[in-house]
Amino acid sequence: MPVNLAAPDPAALLPVPGVELGIASAGIKKPGRKDILVMRLAHDSEVVGVFTQNRFCAAPVTVCKEHLHGGRDDDAGGIRALVVNTGNANAGTGEDGLRRARETCAALADKLGFKAEQVLPFSTGVILEPLPHDKIVAALPDAIADLKPANWAEAAQAIMTTDIVAKAATRKVALNGRDFALTGIAKGSGMIHPNMATMLSFVATDAPVSCEALEAILRYAVNKSFNCITVDGDTSTNDSCILVATGVTDAPVLMDDGDPRFNTLRDAVTELMIQLAQAIVRDGEGATKFMEIRVEGGRDEAECKQIAYAIAKSPLVKTAFFASDPNLGRILAAVGYAGVADLDVDRVKLWLGNVLVAENGGRSPGYQEAEGARVMAAPEINVRLYLGRGDAIATVWTCDFSYEYVKINAEYRT
Amino acid sequence: MPVNLAAPDPAALLPVPGVELGIASAGIKKPGRKDILVMRLAHDSEVVGVFTQNRFCAAPVTVCKEHLHGGRDDDAGGIRALVVNTGNANAGTGEDGLRRARETCAALADKLGFKAEQVLPFSTGVILEPLPHDKIVAALPDAIADLKPANWAEAAQAIMTTDIVAKAATRKVALNGRDFALTGIAKGSGMIHPNMATMLSFVATDAPVSCEALEAILRYAVNKSFNCITVDGDTSTNDSCILVATGVTDAPVLMDDGDPRFNTLRDAVTELMIQLAQAIVRDGEGATKFMEIRVEGGRDEAECKQIAYAIAKSPLVKTAFFASDPNLGRILAAVGYAGVADLDVDRVKLWLGNVLVAENGGRSPGYQEAEGARVMAAPEINVRLYLGRGDAIATVWTCDFSYEYVKINAEYRT
Repeated sequence: MPVNLAAPDPAALLPVPGVELGIASAGIKKPGRKDILVMRLAHDSEVVGVFTQNRFCAAPVTVCKEHLHGGRDDDAGGIRALVVNTGNANAGTGEDGLRRARETCAALADKLGFKAEQVLPFSTGVILEPLPHDKIVAALPDAIADLKPANWAEAAQAIMTTDIVAKAATRKVALNGRDFALTGIAKGSGMIHPNMATMLSFVATDAPVSCEALEAILRYAVNKSFNCITVDGDTSTNDSCILVATGVTDAPVLMDDGDPRFNTLRDAVTELMIQLAQAIVRDGEGATKFMEIRVEGGRDEAECKQIAYAIAKSPLVKTAFFASDPNLGRILAAVGYAGVADLDVDRVKLWLGNVLVAENGGRSPGYQEAEGARVMAAPEINVRLYLGRGDAIATVWTCDFSYEYVKINAEYRT
Repeated sequence: MPVNLAAPDPAALLPVPGVELGIASAGIKKPGRKDILVMRLAHDSEVVGVFTQNRFCAAPVTVCKEHLHGGRDDDAGGIRALVVNTGNANAGTGEDGLRRARETCAALADKLGFKAEQVLPFSTGVILEPLPHDKIVAALPDAIADLKPANWAEAAQAIMTTDIVAKAATRKVALNGRDFALTGIAKGSGMIHPNMATMLSFVATDAPVSCEALEAILRYAVNKSFNCITVDGDTSTNDSCILVATGVTDAPVLMDDGDPRFNTLRDAVTELMIQLAQAIVRDGEGATKFMEIRVEGGRDEAECKQIAYAIAKSPLVKTAFFASDPNLGRILAAVGYAGVADLDVDRVKLWLGNVLVAENGGRSPGYQEAEGARVMAAPEINVRLYLGRGDAIATVWTCDFSYEYVKINAEYRT
């Protein structure tokens, strides 16, 4: 069951002026399940994205990259719609998969009066199966008929696969005394070890932002959020994270990071994406615990993240957390093999919650195992490591490794 | 249960002239369990070793490195004895751990008439607990009284921890028409992702070999054996692999790789170590399947191994193998995120057993899932990948990921 994660309250999710969402059933995997999402964006919206680094990237990722390179000044006229399906990833499908993704875009563009290049496609689900794009195309009219701004919660539902809980977040951002909406959704539960983006996430604001500024905000926010989580260490073929700024306002456009509004918006997007990224971990396959791994005192952020991920990915650490066992040796072993070749282990300090458990290359003299066990018994656990080499910090979020993870992944598809 | 792995037949294990083994009960973790092994080596034996790259390396690893640097011409007189305990790893124990390891060596040396520097210590078991070296020292007389050449099977038993089956291998090596014995033992089942050596392995021959030639043989053999296996991706703090050449013979010493006997001995050691390394995987924690992952057609061995390990370590691949599910997408996803940045996925071919399952970036047109399922149903599965970039090859062995793995590691210590 998800760890401290409730489904979003539909009434609390702020509509974003310039964004309409419509859902429908295409019957891709299960008849009757809402498995198609269409998003229509206002004219002149800016849209930026980051995508998986997996070499076997899915056909829709390739098509997204082709369609995105332009921006609103592109001859094609800028991105105006997104189409998302669950139940089939359209990954490992070669040339035929690209054709099916492009035909889906063309069909939606035709119905909405745009060009095919103004549509971005997204798919999630089983890999290596041909995308049933005819079913998707047949369901587009229902999705279009359903388009409305207040559909974020339904959209979060429609993009779920093995997710148990829908994931959405929302907030108001005040820029120069004017309020803008910032709302986003995400999906993901397994094959989660994002590398430049997570499974699928769509975030939108009506703030007016230039393409360059929006790109800078997205890269900053993803690096602090979706690129800081892992469930099973497997980087998906379909990871995509999209940030939209509709600019449906008469406020002046935020052009670059010299604008005093830049940091405010950047930090709001970052906080919202952290909330969505953490929701993915809380709903990680088989998760019973949520762990924050914070590594401090490194030479640079990269080595802090490297060590934090070694801990977060270790099956031995994750099974010990599942068992609420303060097995410090497994954490230190992971620190030791993380690949920081000149790490002086005698300077390393380790805390579970607020309890100092290890220092000087071994167990802390004052440590009582009962105190460690008390920390480990909670559903949320903070692990803090000090390296004693510098001032850099990185934080990674992960979940434990349970019988249920094995069950879900041994039974998926069957 | 171990996959196709039987306990060694004690009568079949060749004694190695110049090596005596003695076991005893020190009561480190469980009363009555044989948990101490002493090996006594003939005067002028050559002893070489490789050890874990984990920065949190255990105290005995540090002491081994100090004692090994000399060789038989060292002032100290060369290595004459090994002492191994299970039940406690003496890792993450700081200065106090080093002191306890050195005192154990000194006690054994005193009883056998050697110097402390002529003894190598090894420990395996729980991390971060103080080594009860007084118990070990008290048990040394029993182990010494038990010293005899025909004790290899009992020694393999004594070094087990979560291992279900004892691991030993043996063969005769003919060098210039003279037969020499080559016998080895190993232990390991979890925290297995060796990096320069596996958990614990001791291999000995009576062939006469120079220190330099023996080093070269060990590095070659480890790279093709223990450095090609993974159970859970966790590199242990205590990995140690020791190769002994007693040279109890009047045959001339094998000085270097110019000697025609070099390749014969090197290949025999390599084959024996592959057998031991595979035994560790067959007895991997919770294993129900044994997998060979062979990657061909790479630019160099390193990238082949990198991709093979990405497949072998993926929890999603390992749970699919547990379920006998030919989930090709998970294998291809792991290939894609392995970190070979310019991999052309359209050139990749994938076989399960002899069945070509993927090519040209997607499923092979002739592939029938029933054929893949037939391969996956067997307890031993070969995965073969062709990269189409060059002539390099690497092979890695691993096991599946079962409920039992989680159970073993959630319950260990408790």
